[in-house]
Amino acid sequence: MQSYARAGVDISAATRTKEVIKELAQATLRPEVLAGPGLFGGLFELRGYHRPVLVSSCDGVGTKLILAVALGRYEGIGMDIVNHSVNDILTAGADPLFFLDYIAMGKLSPEVVTTVVKGMSMACQEVGCALIGGETAEMPGLYAGQDFDVVGFIVGAVEKENVINGQNIACGDALIGLPSSGLHTNGYSLARKVLGESQSELSRFYPELGGTLGDALLEPHRCYYKELKPLLSVVKGLAHITGGGLLDNVPRILPPNLAAHFCRGTWAVPAIFSLIQRQGKIGSAEAYHVFNMGIGMVVICSPKNVDRVVRALPGATIVGDIIQQSGPERVIID
Amino acid sequence: MQSYARAGVDISAATRTKEVIKELAQATLRPEVLAGPGLFGGLFELRGYHRPVLVSSCDGVGTKLILAVALGRYEGIGMDIVNHSVNDILTAGADPLFFLDYIAMGKLSPEVVTTVVKGMSMACQEVGCALIGGETAEMPGLYAGQDFDVVGFIVGAVEKENVINGQNIACGDALIGLPSSGLHTNGYSLARKVLGESQSELSRFYPELGGTLGDALLEPHRCYYKELKPLLSVVKGLAHITGGGLLDNVPRILPPNLAAHFCRGTWAVPAIFSLIQRQGKIGSAEAYHVFNMGIGMVVICSPKNVDRVVRALPGATIVGDIIQQSGPERVIID
Repeated sequence: MQSYARAGVDISAATRTKEVIKELAQATLRPEVLAGPGLFGGLFELRGYHRPVLVSSCDGVGTKLILAVALGRYEGIGMDIVNHSVNDILTAGADPLFFLDYIAMGKLSPEVVTTVVKGMSMACQEVGCALIGGETAEMPGLYAGQDFDVVGFIVGAVEKENVINGQNIACGDALIGLPSSGLHTNGYSLARKVLGESQSELSRFYPELGGTLGDALLEPHRCYYKELKPLLSVVKGLAHITGGGLLDNVPRILPPNLAAHFCRGTWAVPAIFSLIQRQGKIGSAEAYHVFNMGIGMVVICSPKNVDRVVRALPGATIVGDIIQQSGPERVIID
Repeated sequence: MQSYARAGVDISAATRTKEVIKELAQATLRPEVLAGPGLFGGLFELRGYHRPVLVSSCDGVGTKLILAVALGRYEGIGMDIVNHSVNDILTAGADPLFFLDYIAMGKLSPEVVTTVVKGMSMACQEVGCALIGGETAEMPGLYAGQDFDVVGFIVGAVEKENVINGQNIACGDALIGLPSSGLHTNGYSLARKVLGESQSELSRFYPELGGTLGDALLEPHRCYYKELKPLLSVVKGLAHITGGGLLDNVPRILPPNLAAHFCRGTWAVPAIFSLIQRQGKIGSAEAYHVFNMGIGMVVICSPKNVDRVVRALPGATIVGDIIQQSGPERVIID
């Protein structure tokens, strides 16, 4: 006799895991949450906005997961996806409201799922975001071995008059770089290929990293919400440096005919990037197109506000300026 | 020299695919969309609500994907995930506002991705939902062969006073079943195990199905929004019958001490379910715990509104009633 359990799906294990997730989610709930995990949909009452604009984003953590699996370290993955998502909607000036997660694997591992969700819950609490729902999918045959995927969806809100969209960026504005904590969640396919992904390779100590390769690569994505929130009124544009690096992400917020000019040497490129470049013989153009190279968020503001912004943001440095676009490039790094 | 392309990730192919997706998404945009795909987040201005409650849901299409891959038929998958999501938030009485998708695969296939998104775009247009953003992730090493995953995230809204949450459900209320179009998006791991998943097995013609097995199994998830929308004011509860069947889903909206009593024979169980049960020697209890068994949505309303509701909904039938809970079971099927 066939049954769902024999076909590889254990509904009771899934139900038990959902209970733990529900508890972890409880810790994040806000008064606006009318119904959290358990119903068909999460219910969030939107209060206190005059002309609310909802800002949403969806993303995964990419193949950073493969390294987490190799080392059996999952908590950072949950923080990664929440922080990545919060940063994404922060670029429009939005406050995070609620977050939903999707976790898929071939064979449900309650330990892995709950550890990932614990990281999500912690990161959500940090910024006052409600973990309002999600889906844990067990899909034998679609995910092999210990592989799995983690996806996050976030919704935030901002008053329409406070939306940050880069349209006021002008020639002469300053580019301020906020340090990344490492690769964040991008460029892992290349990093793994160059530096390896086995447990022994990841456990190797590198003096220049001040720790193991695994420590450096699994460092969670840094969240910029709390430090930037008090400064948003003087910020003209924010670019979250994800896949595609400075080269692809900064143009997303630039008005026509302007370009971003970055001066190398104004910020420290962390050792992990130099290591990948050296070991993989990766040229600078490629590296800046794949990795954040030490800048996780670019803040654009007018020169008169630069001092205030830089002083308020730990580790921030002026990394360039906005110039007239003279050639095809919208981002110049020299 | 290493490069991202050699490591299996082709950023230009991804960029080209994003352009096509952007066009498909354009067709779905509404005036409230201030910024759609392309920015870090989608921007949607919420207008016309007095006390808006945001209703959100996140889900995947499960291993139905494996069958789509085997037959190279992807359009229905996009419709599946949108319709599933729309139904989920409809259970709270919400109108769909915007949808985001996540599509992940080992090696980016622009054809597959754009076909899936085309199905999403069509289904979104059908219900006036904006396809506002998403992520296409190429993850060599995490997804093998042609495998991929498709996840959907939806946000809708409903006036607080109109939220449907089942709290007014009373003893004697009627259960009305809306016909499903097939398995929808649940129970595929078991169905594949019983009936097979190879191209030749899926291409086999079954007289009782009036078509091939693949046709029956890939039939898109039915959307109930347009037919139910005009009736929501007289609906006390809605249960979307997904994973866990009638047994797990109906209790999610029942007040304490009430149970749902379904009378078998009041609705036609489609041939695909009988076929799976017979071939897999699957007992009734198991089948009703895994499959929707022909009912995609359960509508609960007071007896006085039953005629109106049944008349307005194509294929709807009275399938049972709400009774006092006398034992541990919250759902009785007999």
